[in-house]
Amino acid sequence: MKANVDTQIYHQTEENTVIQKLIENIKKTNAPIVVGLDPMLSYIPEQITKAAFAEYGETLEGAAEAVWQYNKKIVDAVWDLIPAVKPQIAMYEQFGIPGLAAFQKTVSYCQEKGLVVIGDVKRGDIGSTSAAYAAAHLGRIQIGSQWLTPFGEDFATVNPYLGTDGIKPFLDVCREEKKGIFVLVKTSNPSSGEFQDRLVADAPADSIQGESAAKAMATADFSQIGQRREAGAKPLYELVGEKVAEWADTCMGETYSYVGAVVGATYPEMGKTLRRVMPKSFILVPGYGAQGGKAADLAPFFNEDGLGAIVNSSRGIIAAYKQEKYASFGPEHFAEASRAAVTDMIEDINGALGRR
Amino acid sequence: MKANVDTQIYHQTEENTVIQKLIENIKKTNAPIVVGLDPMLSYIPEQITKAAFAEYGETLEGAAEAVWQYNKKIVDAVWDLIPAVKPQIAMYEQFGIPGLAAFQKTVSYCQEKGLVVIGDVKRGDIGSTSAAYAAAHLGRIQIGSQWLTPFGEDFATVNPYLGTDGIKPFLDVCREEKKGIFVLVKTSNPSSGEFQDRLVADAPADSIQGESAAKAMATADFSQIGQRREAGAKPLYELVGEKVAEWADTCMGETYSYVGAVVGATYPEMGKTLRRVMPKSFILVPGYGAQGGKAADLAPFFNEDGLGAIVNSSRGIIAAYKQEKYASFGPEHFAEASRAAVTDMIEDINGALGRR
Repeated sequence: MKANVDTQIYHQTEENTVIQKLIENIKKTNAPIVVGLDPMLSYIPEQITKAAFAEYGETLEGAAEAVWQYNKKIVDAVWDLIPAVKPQIAMYEQFGIPGLAAFQKTVSYCQEKGLVVIGDVKRGDIGSTSAAYAAAHLGRIQIGSQWLTPFGEDFATVNPYLGTDGIKPFLDVCREEKKGIFVLVKTSNPSSGEFQDRLVADAPADSIQGESAAKAMATADFSQIGQRREAGAKPLYELVGEKVAEWADTCMGETYSYVGAVVGATYPEMGKTLRRVMPKSFILVPGYGAQGGKAADLAPFFNEDGLGAIVNSSRGIIAAYKQEKYASFGPEHFAEASRAAVTDMIEDINGALGRR
Repeated sequence: MKANVDTQIYHQTEENTVIQKLIENIKKTNAPIVVGLDPMLSYIPEQITKAAFAEYGETLEGAAEAVWQYNKKIVDAVWDLIPAVKPQIAMYEQFGIPGLAAFQKTVSYCQEKGLVVIGDVKRGDIGSTSAAYAAAHLGRIQIGSQWLTPFGEDFATVNPYLGTDGIKPFLDVCREEKKGIFVLVKTSNPSSGEFQDRLVADAPADSIQGESAAKAMATADFSQIGQRREAGAKPLYELVGEKVAEWADTCMGETYSYVGAVVGATYPEMGKTLRRVMPKSFILVPGYGAQGGKAADLAPFFNEDGLGAIVNSSRGIIAAYKQEKYASFGPEHFAEASRAAVTDMIEDINGALGRR
């Protein structure tokens, strides 16, 4: 049963929200970071794949077992240094059902270790379908007289393209289950600007559809609009950020909302703007390290309280042993290499933030 | 291995592309429709859930078994009337791993019946992650010396928010595996206009970031931009449609591209514009029936050859026995009710298109 609670502002209690748990974990570790558990078969040392294939063959089950053993060793090596992990579900989905079972085992194992788990699932659909995704990843599902937990992450990432009614079911489940989401606002990839950076008008174009739109198209001078921000436009990512801020206001924990945003480390100027637009949202910052984001660029993503952002690194941590810097660990000690890379990442970021 | 084929235009042969198979199936059935296999537990007649729970308990496995038996009976009842099905993966994902196994069984079963299967997965991420999703749903994955098929749908729906480098890996896999995608352009839900209908400038806002953007914000007059289409702006959905047309041009079958688009039946005026913008793309049209789209609104989505669109109905078909119109079938004969609803839908649409 969904509570009918849209208009109220919720203040969940300090002890039991995932956002509060995330904040406590960050303070405990002094590490505003998250490790992306995005395993590729090519990252996994031979001793692990060999053993998995010996047991299950060169099958989806074999690949999934290798992924799980790899994850487990990395988590065992780094869990005490970090507040959270972010498994990217696509890297499991590519191994079909067995891969998704490895995803689920990874989620549970990390939670047992006290880590906050951000399911990087980037789901989002029309209302009734988003409700199913929200139940799948953050909620429970009723089967007969039972309420069961399908995947049970703490946070999920959500795609905003379908608008508020694609987000609302996630907010409802977050309120009920004390979970959280990070909405994609400005992603870290090179072509994210193709749509996200477009200057948009402040009001939808509803009134000029059809015939009049066709006429306008015919006479349009597309050369003039490029720099029209001064006349009242703003980039799409900023409009999405404003919506996130609205949603966040209705989903408050003690100091921060459990509705956060994804903003890439590769776009620090936009991060600065978006930090201001969404003051109560945590920003999940991908793109540090392998994708080119530097520690020096991260300050604008944080609030003055030193909180408000959590920086992800995936390949840079889980495949650290493949970098020259950590090559001396060798494939046998890949997990220790990951631990060294986590320590270095924390030092790098805290140094740049002046909180070493 | 990904072929490095970006700049070439591919003409796959007539016999082996999924878009050609879709066209042949549409011609054979004279039915430009697709049945959405989006099972909710509340749709499934008691005799099926009872039997499934008796065997597997009130568990995720029990729910998944009920979903699978329900799907199978509907497919057995309607497969000869229709060209394609569209299972919505969220409705399976909500039952966890067993649910996703039911999704996979449904995909395979429908393909054995000769149906084209559109996986409504709405995935999309940065390049390397989209590559994993593309492999999961449309391609194969290499494990040791083996190439295995994780889910193996014929088409997948894809979210464009991350831009071209989130789409490209899907195009690559489509070319190699002769599969296809439908990119979300204008979705059928009520709040789809929140972002998709915004008037956008023709060029990205790259050049006015940071300080100048902050200054512009401070002095912006947001009241003036609302109706500025005449000055060169266009709605975001149209810009996305133009991108789809570009992608489609590089992925041609014989007459249509295997890169299509999703445009909701609930927005026929926009459908008219988008039909013109994307002449070589099939449009997957959700929103007919339960969501409010009428047959009379569908003509603009089709090309003059009578092709170019495929209209989805989910609840209206699979839960037909719950409608007053088909109540006389009763829950025992739910699958026959679905068959009657399919027949009526085909007649309704062909009548409105003047091709009965």
